[in-house]
Amino acid sequence: MKRVSEHIPGYSYGAAAVAKSPVSTLDLEKLKTSAGFTEEDQRYLQLAGEVLTGQTKQIVDHWRSGIIASIPNLARHSRSPEGAPIPEYLAKSNLRFEQWILDTCLRPYDQDWINYQQEIALRHTSAKKNQVDGVQSTPFVPLRDVMTFVAVMNETIKPYLAARGSSAEEVAKMHLAWCKSIQMQLALWIGPYGDTRQPPTEW
Amino acid sequence: MKRVSEHIPGYSYGAAAVAKSPVSTLDLEKLKTSAGFTEEDQRYLQLAGEVLTGQTKQIVDHWRSGIIASIPNLARHSRSPEGAPIPEYLAKSNLRFEQWILDTCLRPYDQDWINYQQEIALRHTSAKKNQVDGVQSTPFVPLRDVMTFVAVMNETIKPYLAARGSSAEEVAKMHLAWCKSIQMQLALWIGPYGDTRQPPTEW
Repeated sequence: MKRVSEHIPGYSYGAAAVAKSPVSTLDLEKLKTSAGFTEEDQRYLQLAGEVLTGQTKQIVDHWRSGIIASIPNLARHSRSPEGAPIPEYLAKSNLRFEQWILDTCLRPYDQDWINYQQEIALRHTSAKKNQVDGVQSTPFVPLRDVMTFVAVMNETIKPYLAARGSSAEEVAKMHLAWCKSIQMQLALWIGPYGDTRQPPTEW
Repeated sequence: MKRVSEHIPGYSYGAAAVAKSPVSTLDLEKLKTSAGFTEEDQRYLQLAGEVLTGQTKQIVDHWRSGIIASIPNLARHSRSPEGAPIPEYLAKSNLRFEQWILDTCLRPYDQDWINYQQEIALRHTSAKKNQVDGVQSTPFVPLRDVMTFVAVMNETIKPYLAARGSSAEEVAKMHLAWCKSIQMQLALWIGPYGDTRQPPTEW
């Protein structure tokens, strides 16, 4: 499996330490059906993975430094409660963010993948945020911020999908497959969030 | 405001009976920022609304009869617990589904709009599903099904956006604005769902 770096701190895909999700591969098949995710989408995600390999650092820099950094209510989640930068935290989570792009495109969507979706979600909730990096930052990322920033990722990934000379039709199909996968991942992420209700006052 | 029918059963947009959401217009501005939703998107949603007016019946038929009807775990939410069709329920909710398309594109995103997002979400949860139509159907639509079917709606709306001779660039911009709005709506819908936790066994 392609990795963005030989060692990715805190990246534990497939490890025994990753808890098993209550979601089965059969459940995932139902999600695929609901999202209209087909074998063609699977093939175009593979192509997307090949196209995006080598571009992940640029993409994550674009998202993190180019966009998130200028949106205070998103930027704070990589900072201390007082708003001070935590460069090591950012660097480590950026590497995992890069790897997530490749995993989205290139990993088989099996039980390990489902389990790691749960782990990713947990690491955004008060159950596990900050733990793997041993940092003090915001206690959780509100699900609404994840939900909305997805729109930005879906929009801004497009030029990177087009950067290697694929045809407009191929780019459109890669993009469609990407968007479907993200919605399925969101569907998996909401489970862990269900256990960490945010009081309405948090709005 | 454009309506798909003079009388839409159960449609209560802006009515006093619709509860106020804890989400303020200021909160919505933050969601817009996180989703990258700009004034340009607002303008292209208006254009999308003009383009989609007159096509909403066809679109909802496409979604409901063309797609959902053949996916058992989605189709059941318009049926009796035993799986029998409830044609009146379907007809009424289809009209509201049609109107939702227009509201997504043409309504100002103000407090009324925020409040009605909450109402829409509640009507998919065990708090309010079936009530307005006085029917017996599934007690709620799992959020994961909403989350994933959005990918299908986003994919299949595209030809309808292109059906009135807009340029490819205009269609792409209308589609982008649509997708951003849907993610913002999902972010608003998750609030009510937070009060109706589904046991893991429901998977």
